[in-house]
Amino acid sequence: MRPDYVHGYDSAECRRLHDQARTLEALLHHDTAFPADSTVLEVGCGVGAQTIPLIQRSPDARITCVDISSTSLAAAEARVRAAGLPLPAFRQTEIRALPFADASFDHVFLCFVLEHLSDPAAALLEIRRILRPGGTLTVIEGDHGSTLFHPDDPTARAAIRCQVELQREAGGDPDIGRRLHPLLTASNLRSVQVSPRLVYVDASRPELVQGFIRDTFTAMVAGVRDQAIRTGLADAAAFDAGLRALLRTTEPEGVFCYTFFKAVGVKR
Amino acid sequence: MRPDYVHGYDSAECRRLHDQARTLEALLHHDTAFPADSTVLEVGCGVGAQTIPLIQRSPDARITCVDISSTSLAAAEARVRAAGLPLPAFRQTEIRALPFADASFDHVFLCFVLEHLSDPAAALLEIRRILRPGGTLTVIEGDHGSTLFHPDDPTARAAIRCQVELQREAGGDPDIGRRLHPLLTASNLRSVQVSPRLVYVDASRPELVQGFIRDTFTAMVAGVRDQAIRTGLADAAAFDAGLRALLRTTEPEGVFCYTFFKAVGVKR
Repeated sequence: MRPDYVHGYDSAECRRLHDQARTLEALLHHDTAFPADSTVLEVGCGVGAQTIPLIQRSPDARITCVDISSTSLAAAEARVRAAGLPLPAFRQTEIRALPFADASFDHVFLCFVLEHLSDPAAALLEIRRILRPGGTLTVIEGDHGSTLFHPDDPTARAAIRCQVELQREAGGDPDIGRRLHPLLTASNLRSVQVSPRLVYVDASRPELVQGFIRDTFTAMVAGVRDQAIRTGLADAAAFDAGLRALLRTTEPEGVFCYTFFKAVGVKR
Repeated sequence: MRPDYVHGYDSAECRRLHDQARTLEALLHHDTAFPADSTVLEVGCGVGAQTIPLIQRSPDARITCVDISSTSLAAAEARVRAAGLPLPAFRQTEIRALPFADASFDHVFLCFVLEHLSDPAAALLEIRRILRPGGTLTVIEGDHGSTLFHPDDPTARAAIRCQVELQREAGGDPDIGRRLHPLLTASNLRSVQVSPRLVYVDASRPELVQGFIRDTFTAMVAGVRDQAIRTGLADAAAFDAGLRALLRTTEPEGVFCYTFFKAVGVKR
């Protein structure tokens, strides 16, 4: 378990991660399916929020999931069982030293993991080591710099900046999405292709007003409230004003946009 | 001719507008085609940069183009002739009082026009007046708040902010893209559908490195250099540093994103 993981490990956050995964599933995962019997490693599976769609879309692949937190792994396993899906292998490990032989996987999948690492380039080199030549790496990340909303509001932007600052202080990069092409290319993968996935929400899309603005994005920002106040990044009144301003984008004239980036590269 | 039109009327700007239109044509226009014999009004055609794809995709529609600048109209007409396309009707007018009877057009098309108006809601009401019931309005706008690049750089962001400030001082809104859904809905159109059009550029897309980062976006920012310096928004050294930083996004590890918004609504 990482004490500095910006989103924390509580049950509201666990629910948020699963809400987010359901809302974004088609957008992020529709074009990821691994062949029957291929070996797939999910790195940083956490509580299994992305593991569920991964298994659903590749039901006959041989999937292994690793995470640094044994608590999260147990939650992920329980979640997969509850969904009635075939169980992947679960294994607790750090990313920097994966307990697998060179070239032992056909495909590797990471979602919302690199953003939390202080040295994503080193992690990519370790991941490349365990990929077989010709195997693929799939990476999905967000980019908080892409956040755009109406009505625009400085208190809302300040609250988001708290989340950004805390993640940076923990060594992460909440704007990593835009860097996927140079990162994967620098780790000597070939044929790197990046496709942005823009979530656009207005009043004509009520399921995204709830599922994305409220349950995913605002819930994420709300999740750092206590930490932001405790560390002096914001006072409670200002932070709460920011959350209220974010929620004004859920009203009939509101609009909200956020862009995720998905990259696929091939090991030489 | 509007003395406060932020992009100006010189020949480099005219070339930039046509470069931009060619680079973005498929992304912005692929789903706009008006039926044979339908009457279509392009409002704010300028030098005809969007008129060319409009005619090409709706060759048998009866198109009328209006603009406030007779110089721009003459340039647009020359451009359409040079392209060997059927000539639309051209007419000089202000948007606020269109010289057409109520309900006289089947469709109206605007591209990069509302962003320059101090009262886009009033313009939309006047446009709605000349639309027949059941007719459609198509609007395309950018949103400078969506600009996102790597390597990120404060001097580049400062140079972009000059363009934003000058456009705001001239009464426009360079972030209007995100507001299209509420604007069209408030003008009492029905079935308003907005689709974002994200331009994503990395080193694997050299035609966009040239066509978008250099010839469209950086050229647009460079176009306000003298005005930004004259009005004291920036000094020359800082502005030029910003332009150089923008161009670093054209190097092999660079990435650039920008989002346009396209909206279609129907007159009740």
